[in-house]
Amino acid sequence: MAAACLICTLNFQSLQCCHLLLRITIVTWITEYSCLTVMLQMFVARQGLQALSKALPSTTSYLQKRSLAAMSVGNKFDLPDRYRGSEKSVWVEYIQLAQETQPLNLGQGFPDFAAPDHVTKSLAEACTGENVLLNQYTRGFGHLRLVKALSQLYSKVIGRSIDPATEVLVTAGAYEALFATIMGHTGPGDEVIIIEPFFDCYEPMVRSAGGTPKFIPLKLVKSGPGPISSGDWKLDVNQLSSMFNSKTKSIIVNTPHNPIGKVFTQEELTVIADLCKKWNVLCISDEVYEWMVYKPFKHIRMATLPGMWERTITIGSAGKTFSVTGWKTGWAYGPAELMKNPMTVHQNCVYTCTTPVQEAVARGFEFEMSRMDSPECYFYSLAEELLPKRDFMAKFLSEVGMVPTVPEGGYFMIADWTPLANKVDLSQEKDKYRDYKFTKWMSKNVKLQGIPPSAFYSEPNKHLIEDYVRYCFIKKDENLQKAAEILQKWKGSK
Amino acid sequence: MAAACLICTLNFQSLQCCHLLLRITIVTWITEYSCLTVMLQMFVARQGLQALSKALPSTTSYLQKRSLAAMSVGNKFDLPDRYRGSEKSVWVEYIQLAQETQPLNLGQGFPDFAAPDHVTKSLAEACTGENVLLNQYTRGFGHLRLVKALSQLYSKVIGRSIDPATEVLVTAGAYEALFATIMGHTGPGDEVIIIEPFFDCYEPMVRSAGGTPKFIPLKLVKSGPGPISSGDWKLDVNQLSSMFNSKTKSIIVNTPHNPIGKVFTQEELTVIADLCKKWNVLCISDEVYEWMVYKPFKHIRMATLPGMWERTITIGSAGKTFSVTGWKTGWAYGPAELMKNPMTVHQNCVYTCTTPVQEAVARGFEFEMSRMDSPECYFYSLAEELLPKRDFMAKFLSEVGMVPTVPEGGYFMIADWTPLANKVDLSQEKDKYRDYKFTKWMSKNVKLQGIPPSAFYSEPNKHLIEDYVRYCFIKKDENLQKAAEILQKWKGSK
Repeated sequence: MAAACLICTLNFQSLQCCHLLLRITIVTWITEYSCLTVMLQMFVARQGLQALSKALPSTTSYLQKRSLAAMSVGNKFDLPDRYRGSEKSVWVEYIQLAQETQPLNLGQGFPDFAAPDHVTKSLAEACTGENVLLNQYTRGFGHLRLVKALSQLYSKVIGRSIDPATEVLVTAGAYEALFATIMGHTGPGDEVIIIEPFFDCYEPMVRSAGGTPKFIPLKLVKSGPGPISSGDWKLDVNQLSSMFNSKTKSIIVNTPHNPIGKVFTQEELTVIADLCKKWNVLCISDEVYEWMVYKPFKHIRMATLPGMWERTITIGSAGKTFSVTGWKTGWAYGPAELMKNPMTVHQNCVYTCTTPVQEAVARGFEFEMSRMDSPECYFYSLAEELLPKRDFMAKFLSEVGMVPTVPEGGYFMIADWTPLANKVDLSQEKDKYRDYKFTKWMSKNVKLQGIPPSAFYSEPNKHLIEDYVRYCFIKKDENLQKAAEILQKWKGSK
Repeated sequence: MAAACLICTLNFQSLQCCHLLLRITIVTWITEYSCLTVMLQMFVARQGLQALSKALPSTTSYLQKRSLAAMSVGNKFDLPDRYRGSEKSVWVEYIQLAQETQPLNLGQGFPDFAAPDHVTKSLAEACTGENVLLNQYTRGFGHLRLVKALSQLYSKVIGRSIDPATEVLVTAGAYEALFATIMGHTGPGDEVIIIEPFFDCYEPMVRSAGGTPKFIPLKLVKSGPGPISSGDWKLDVNQLSSMFNSKTKSIIVNTPHNPIGKVFTQEELTVIADLCKKWNVLCISDEVYEWMVYKPFKHIRMATLPGMWERTITIGSAGKTFSVTGWKTGWAYGPAELMKNPMTVHQNCVYTCTTPVQEAVARGFEFEMSRMDSPECYFYSLAEELLPKRDFMAKFLSEVGMVPTVPEGGYFMIADWTPLANKVDLSQEKDKYRDYKFTKWMSKNVKLQGIPPSAFYSEPNKHLIEDYVRYCFIKKDENLQKAAEILQKWKGSK
């Protein structure tokens, strides 16, 4: 074998040189899998490899050639195909933006106030207490005390006995619960229905499993006078119904919904449930905001609908429940038959979660379950605490001219910012979508940060939400007050 | 569509009924992908579907039929193919066994003594301190204070400047670091060389990424008189060399090695490094036991070899470093170009790790780095503490007649138990491999638990290690003493 690449003269052993690899790859394909040559030809034609081969003898610079080659067949150490398109993250981008522009940050969804004392003290005690084994590995599918607490809680609220050993899986945050569930129940050819907007990890997870996401956007159908409610964002039942077919493997439902704040009604959930039953489809029910619902609305758990326990995996989060998003402890629960696959995925990815944190969350649940009849129970008191924050945010956004959607649940609020379009100058912003331009301009110039909700839409539908921004209201009153002042001052400026 | 399955009369909407799905699936395949019919016919012939179709009109019971169908084409909610064979875990099985038989457990690798005070106190302070944001989400690729500490430490020991922003990734344990690295650098057709025995997660991770693991077992070549050393387990250089080819994507090297305890020498690592450079191969260097090396042996980091930084991703663990395996905090570091892929995988799987734990680990590193010139530094003192434990275990195993391999590093010891074969009755044990039979019999009858090392071999090579058991010696002296007494008592019994 030659000691240097014939194309770029770089040593072929270098990670930088892809040309020899490119040649070897093609030769290997052709010689070893001759039946694949037709496919290869199609691939070559489609990917523009011919353009590359024509370009090689020319004077095209090395870098141009390398970039062309990388686009065409990829370097040896390029991202595997199943992750293509998953590189970008709105969180990475906007955390970076916040560091650079130092705005008041109403972007990412976490409380800026203290979690309940009993929960944080439990962690301090667990890691420094006499039982030194609480700093060591625990049971892979979940620390025993925590799965017991979870099964006790959900047995009560679901109204059936849940087996802590086989029907509950503790994960590295609800994020990993979604990952384990989606990966464990998605294979090549499977279709997964996703309601838009959606928590942004759903799509890359489905794609990296080889599945095909099928998107259906909620539609704003204003039903009467007064402020827009998250309930005005409706599922088109006919469209949804037409999407189910024999390839449909699962549907992901998020209630209460991020970022709309919609709390799905019994009727809406029944429509989804009936389609799941008709087409033998798994429902992945992301209910991480289950306790953050504002009166008179009520959270209905998909698994409580007739015939749905058997086909639902529900996702929950200690981070949301106890205002400790940094603890990264979540779970999935459902019938043992459906939980086996997520457990296998978890076992081969993270294997076991942080022991002292699980112990503390378990103690937290035990304490709150002991006072579930009292309004002081954190499951209810947090929503009571959030309600005036929600109303204050809706008020100050309206006062400056934005049009908020008042959420029935969760701790996010989207608002139409376009009535203020004449106050912003987006001409210098390079992003493709207007909500990205608006949020970046605001971080830089007004020092208030929100999240562009088109991050929660599939590429073809991002345009549907460009007029909106997402703000988070699980923040100290003083910070919400500051946000109001920032916006009012800006509104008053010329 | 009919309301009930024609075969089993169960409602076809039920998850229990696979027959209609089977029919729909086949029809869909044939009508929608006509080019696949040949493959389908081959598949049908191979999987015995014909037997099923013949059986259907007969009186075969529903359950038999269902099981046959499930074996043939699978139910809709069966495990996706990429996870097939990954369901079994020696850890799940042996943790269960320990619960049932209550032995003295020298199986799983974790200390049963307290972690350093300053580390556990840091966690207690982080979660209850004034900075309430330490309980909330932190940077996805790693808490800033921790990636800075890691880059500082490894810049020093590797001897080059490591960028905390782009060259370090914090993960949910070294386990997830391995997952992110393997998944991020393995695609269909890629070959990954794995040295046997191997930490058992390597194989399913490679397979679920579509890669093909290629195994090479270490061989025991006793070099002289005296006890067997882990250094006597050798890599066959010719065999290794013959395994590299144009499809080789990476090699996973574990030094210090679990379960052998081998600390790879400069010469051995150089052989591997030269092959990596010759074939443009990534080295995944699992160095989680980096600080647990016994004099006069020295841990050599693969990334320090000439030309190897550019093609190495190194895996480390806070759990091993600070004796807090339950904290599930690990990391991968390497050149930015190679780290991008693991970062993308992490971002779509766990996204961000536990904040207060990362803060505590960062403070732990800062403190230990400030005393790296002192023998009190935990990086060295732990190995000093482990050395007499190792020697005591080697002594008591030898005294009862086992033949231990004395490890140069790590905290495991394998031992040949067959000199005691006449003391055990394995006839009632149902497992396939003798080491499984032996360890289970010991847990039940002698009340001492070890791990069967064939769990760390590929199926065709498991027979190579059936004569051995793995014990862990990072245990309190009193528990090692108990283990010695249990074995001596057993040896003395008739």
